[in-house]
Amino acid sequence: MPTSIDVVFTPDLLPFSDLTGKTVVVTDILRATTTITLAVANGATAITPVLTPEDAFRLAADQPNTLIGGERGGVKVDGFDLGNSPREYTQAVVSDRQIVLTTTNGTRTLQACRAAERILVGSFLNLRATVDQLAQVEGELVIACSGREGGFCTEDTVFAGACVAALEETQLTDAAETAKLLYQTHRDDLLGMLKNCYHGRSLARIGLGEDLEFCAQVDLVDVAPHLIDGRITA
Amino acid sequence: MPTSIDVVFTPDLLPFSDLTGKTVVVTDILRATTTITLAVANGATAITPVLTPEDAFRLAADQPNTLIGGERGGVKVDGFDLGNSPREYTQAVVSDRQIVLTTTNGTRTLQACRAAERILVGSFLNLRATVDQLAQVEGELVIACSGREGGFCTEDTVFAGACVAALEETQLTDAAETAKLLYQTHRDDLLGMLKNCYHGRSLARIGLGEDLEFCAQVDLVDVAPHLIDGRITA
Repeated sequence: MPTSIDVVFTPDLLPFSDLTGKTVVVTDILRATTTITLAVANGATAITPVLTPEDAFRLAADQPNTLIGGERGGVKVDGFDLGNSPREYTQAVVSDRQIVLTTTNGTRTLQACRAAERILVGSFLNLRATVDQLAQVEGELVIACSGREGGFCTEDTVFAGACVAALEETQLTDAAETAKLLYQTHRDDLLGMLKNCYHGRSLARIGLGEDLEFCAQVDLVDVAPHLIDGRITA
Repeated sequence: MPTSIDVVFTPDLLPFSDLTGKTVVVTDILRATTTITLAVANGATAITPVLTPEDAFRLAADQPNTLIGGERGGVKVDGFDLGNSPREYTQAVVSDRQIVLTTTNGTRTLQACRAAERILVGSFLNLRATVDQLAQVEGELVIACSGREGGFCTEDTVFAGACVAALEETQLTDAAETAKLLYQTHRDDLLGMLKNCYHGRSLARIGLGEDLEFCAQVDLVDVAPHLIDGRITA
């Protein structure tokens, strides 16, 4: 069991946390880590998060059997193979393929955690698999939310709280206590929470409301993807 | 009534908010804004927040009838007249005096809000007076919490939530919704919340537990201090 749990609400606050030697779970429920979780479960060999569409094109050009995915403003970037909707990352599309991914918030958070000893990628889709890994952690645990640029978001914090709630008798920071409260408030209606939060409303407005139902599914898959040397694998 | 309310959890996130034209309430419940509220209510003519003890000594040297107050590590700085405990700022001590104040978190937040059109200073001590002012705001409202360096704190967010809860039918960000939930959870035991939060436990540990009881008092005074041109006055 971890000795302590902190929750960091946005990647912009990660520089204030010393992640050295710690385990970090990165989450971006809408939608990067939901998409990554599903892609790994559906057989993608590796997902490489990068910061910009230019980086994505450059990296993919050197690699065979590689798809480029991601979004800006919520929608697929021109020239990309895939957007950032988990519904696109089916077994037929991603099995045995590599993916280079760039999104507005989630890939920034993954980059900002590089100092950590171990980096997991979590979403409601693999909540139980994530918690099973975390229960074995013996040092300090940080759950890194992606938020929206410079701001707090509800949905990532609810996921963080779900992890906190499952790990009993651990020392919690104020942020971890708040995340737990937020999860306890919304646990019985995760879809309603996703429909009401700022980011969920934005996605519905651009015609991606079906993604909310997808992202609200708990324990759909049984993988605990890790980021190692810049690549996310099972 | 404000058109929208956002809550910013730490001054480190204020650079992501455009405060131009907005009303901002700054809070640092433990203890800077509680102390400021009380000092103003007890007749201090002005409080000037500065970032460092060096700035405080320099500024006070030029001004007659001026006390220097504040803390580092929670305790009074060597050579200062006062620490950061509101209990020290009695009418006998502060009436008709100016005060130069420097604290670890609160004065940083006050500095970081300078772009705002109007800056209020709030605490539980003047909750009703603060809300009465906010109800008349017609544009966007931001409640700026001081947190601890780079991190979220419960007590400031509960105060922010108390303001949000009192201002009905306003558009709320995810952070404002969360603050409101936190207030609803703790409203019936603000002292218990202060005793359990990270900062409250730190203060109790260094012998300042009585400050928690002081800071938990709601509507003790009827002032709504404003920061104008670097000085806080009634």
